[in-house]
Amino acid sequence: MNASDITFEVVYHLIAQTKEIAASTAERIRVEQSVEMPLSALPTQAECSLPNIQSVKQQTETRWEVTLSFPYNIIGEDIIQFLNVLYGNISLYNNIKIVDVSSNILQRLFDGPTFGIEGIRKLLHVYNRPLSCTALKPVGLSPSQFAERAYNFSLGGIDIIKDDHGLANQDSADFQQRISACIQAIKKANDKSGSKTLYFPNITAGTEQLKRNFDLAIEKGADGVLISPQLTGLSTLKDLSSQKVCPIMAHPAFSGSFISQPDSGFSLQLYYGKLWRALGADAVIFPNTGGRFPFSYNQCQSLHNTLTSKIKTFKTSFPVPAGGIQLDSIDKWIKEYGLQTIFLIGGSLYTQPGGILDASKTFKSILINHGSSIKSN
Amino acid sequence: MNASDITFEVVYHLIAQTKEIAASTAERIRVEQSVEMPLSALPTQAECSLPNIQSVKQQTETRWEVTLSFPYNIIGEDIIQFLNVLYGNISLYNNIKIVDVSSNILQRLFDGPTFGIEGIRKLLHVYNRPLSCTALKPVGLSPSQFAERAYNFSLGGIDIIKDDHGLANQDSADFQQRISACIQAIKKANDKSGSKTLYFPNITAGTEQLKRNFDLAIEKGADGVLISPQLTGLSTLKDLSSQKVCPIMAHPAFSGSFISQPDSGFSLQLYYGKLWRALGADAVIFPNTGGRFPFSYNQCQSLHNTLTSKIKTFKTSFPVPAGGIQLDSIDKWIKEYGLQTIFLIGGSLYTQPGGILDASKTFKSILINHGSSIKSN
Repeated sequence: MNASDITFEVVYHLIAQTKEIAASTAERIRVEQSVEMPLSALPTQAECSLPNIQSVKQQTETRWEVTLSFPYNIIGEDIIQFLNVLYGNISLYNNIKIVDVSSNILQRLFDGPTFGIEGIRKLLHVYNRPLSCTALKPVGLSPSQFAERAYNFSLGGIDIIKDDHGLANQDSADFQQRISACIQAIKKANDKSGSKTLYFPNITAGTEQLKRNFDLAIEKGADGVLISPQLTGLSTLKDLSSQKVCPIMAHPAFSGSFISQPDSGFSLQLYYGKLWRALGADAVIFPNTGGRFPFSYNQCQSLHNTLTSKIKTFKTSFPVPAGGIQLDSIDKWIKEYGLQTIFLIGGSLYTQPGGILDASKTFKSILINHGSSIKSN
Repeated sequence: MNASDITFEVVYHLIAQTKEIAASTAERIRVEQSVEMPLSALPTQAECSLPNIQSVKQQTETRWEVTLSFPYNIIGEDIIQFLNVLYGNISLYNNIKIVDVSSNILQRLFDGPTFGIEGIRKLLHVYNRPLSCTALKPVGLSPSQFAERAYNFSLGGIDIIKDDHGLANQDSADFQQRISACIQAIKKANDKSGSKTLYFPNITAGTEQLKRNFDLAIEKGADGVLISPQLTGLSTLKDLSSQKVCPIMAHPAFSGSFISQPDSGFSLQLYYGKLWRALGADAVIFPNTGGRFPFSYNQCQSLHNTLTSKIKTFKTSFPVPAGGIQLDSIDKWIKEYGLQTIFLIGGSLYTQPGGILDASKTFKSILINHGSSIKSN
C-alpha cells in the first residue's frame, strides 16, 4: 500500500451539551489537527491533508465519542509530528480527551520494546512469579549509604532495584560514584546469595547529560536504566530503546497533567499503555489505584491489560504498579494484577521494624508462595 | 553563598475543603517532591533534603496558596531535575497547581533568551511598532506553492514568516526543498521591496532529526527557527538557545495539558512566561483570549507582562498572541498588548478577498499607523 493511501483512526471523547456542539467540535479537531486554516481558503491540493469524521456517538448525556480517520501523509514518518497530529493544538482546549489510536500506525512508526516482559525475565531467569522492585532513596544520602541499602535489598532477594527518580547528580552523591558503589554492592550480594538482582539507575537529564549518563551506566555494569520520558522528551525513549543495549523502565514524573484529567489529556491506557510501549518502554511504572494517586481500579486494570496484550509485532511491556503499595497488602495486588507484573514497593520496605533485608525477604517469599496459583493473564 | 545554603521558593495553589486538608496536602508536596518516603524512616543525613512549608494562606473558600522553600542541593545543577522537583510526582494529583517560582533559582540554572526582544528587533531594524508574523500553511502544498506564499507575505511587508507547526518532512514538501524554496523566495522579495522579512522554519522533530534540521536551516540561510518544546523535550530549548546562532520561537503544541486546567498543572505565566523564557525562548506563541482557545484576558495579559518584565540578567521575550486573531480586530489587540508584541495572524490573512499580498500590506500599515501612539509598556 502506498503511504498516500494509508489512513489511521484516532478516537476522542468530547464534552458537549448537544449533538450539534459535538459535531462542530469534531469538525474543529479535524481542521485544527491538520491544515489549521479556514476551509473556505483551502487550496485543492491540500484537501488530501484533511481527516474524515467517521462517527460521532453519544456515550452519556454530555459525553461523545468521535472517531476521525487521518491521512498518513501528514505525518512524514516522524514520531514527533505524529504526536503533534494526535494532540498538538487541541491539548490547549479543555474538553477534548484522546482515548485511542489504531494499531496500524503504531506498528508503522514504532518498534515497541526491545526486551519487554520476556527479555527482563530472561535476564533474571525468573518465569513463574511476579517480580519485585524497590527504589533507592532518599536523596541526601552518600554513595556508600545507597550502596549499603542496595546490598541489603539485593541480599533479601529483590529482583530489580531502581534509583528513586529524584536521584540525579547531587553533591551528596554524584552520579558516577553513586551508581558505581551500588553496582559493586549488588554484585557482592548476588555473589553471596547466588541469585540475581538487576540495577536500573536513573539517567534522566538534559539531552547531552543523559547520553553521558547512559554510556556511563552501561560501562559500569548497570542492567537497565530508568528515565522519566515526559522530562527527557518522548523521543528519547525511542532513541534509547533502538540502541538495544538494556531494558528501559519508564517513570511517570511530570506526565500527570496528560493523564489525570477526566475530560482532557490522554486516557491512562493510551498514554502509558500504547504510546510508551510503542516508544520502547520495557517496563512502565504507573500510579496504582488505592494509594496516593487519584486513579480508579478500572483505569489501572485497563492499563495493565493494554501493556500485556498482544499487539502484532510489539513485545509486551511489564506493568509496574507503584505509589503507596504496602508490604502487608501485596497479596491483594498480586491477585488483582497477576503474574505479568513488577510490584514496586518503596517506602513500605523502609519502615518495616526488621529492616530492609528482612522486609525484602518477606516480599520475595510472598511472590514465590503465590507462584503458580495466581492468574497467568 | 555555598550551594548547600541556597533555597528557592515555589508557590502552589491547592483545592481543599478545610485548612487541615490544605496543610496536609502541603505536607504531602513537601515529601513527594523531595525524599518521597515516610518521614518515620528518614535518615538524619537526608533531613536537609526536605523543603520547609513557609505559609498556607486561604484565598477563597476552597483555594489555598502554599509556599514551600526548597533546598537547592536536591537539584544537582540539572534543569531537568529542577523541573522534576517543581512538579514531577505531584503532576499525578489533580488538585495541585504550581503558580510561581522565585527568580533566584531561575537566574542560577538558566541563561534566558540569547536574542530576545532587542535581538529580534535588531535583525529587523524595527524599533517603534509591534511586529507582524504569519504562518506558512497548509500541509499538503508543494515547496514551490509554499515559496509563492512566502514571496507574497514578504513583499506585503510581514516581519516574520514562520512555518505552520505541522509542517515537518512530508512527502508533499520535504524539509530541505521546502525551506530552500522559501528562503530564496523571501530573499527575492526582500531584494525587491528593500525591507526585511525573517523566516523561521519549523525544525521540531526527534532529537537527532532536530539537530539535522537546525544545521540545515542555518546553512540554507534561515533567520530563526520554530520549535514546539513540549514535543522536543524542554531541554532542547536551552540546548538550541545556548548555541547563540539565531532566535528561537516557541510554539505551545502538545503543552496545553500543562496550562489549560484551573486546578492543576502550571499557571500560564509561570509555564510560558517564566520557564520557557528562562529556557531561552526569544519569542513565545501563546493561545490568545477571545479566539479559539479557553484562556481569559487576565491570564493572557499576565503572561504578556511576565515575558516583557525585567528579571535581572534575562533578556525579555517577545509575546506572540495567536490562535484566531483577525485582521479586522488587530486594532483592539494592539491597544491591549502594546508595542512589545509580535501579532501572529494566520488564517485571516488567507481569507482576505484581495489575496495575501494585499492582506499583508494592510497588516503592516495598521502596525505602522499605530506606531508611536500606542502604549510602550
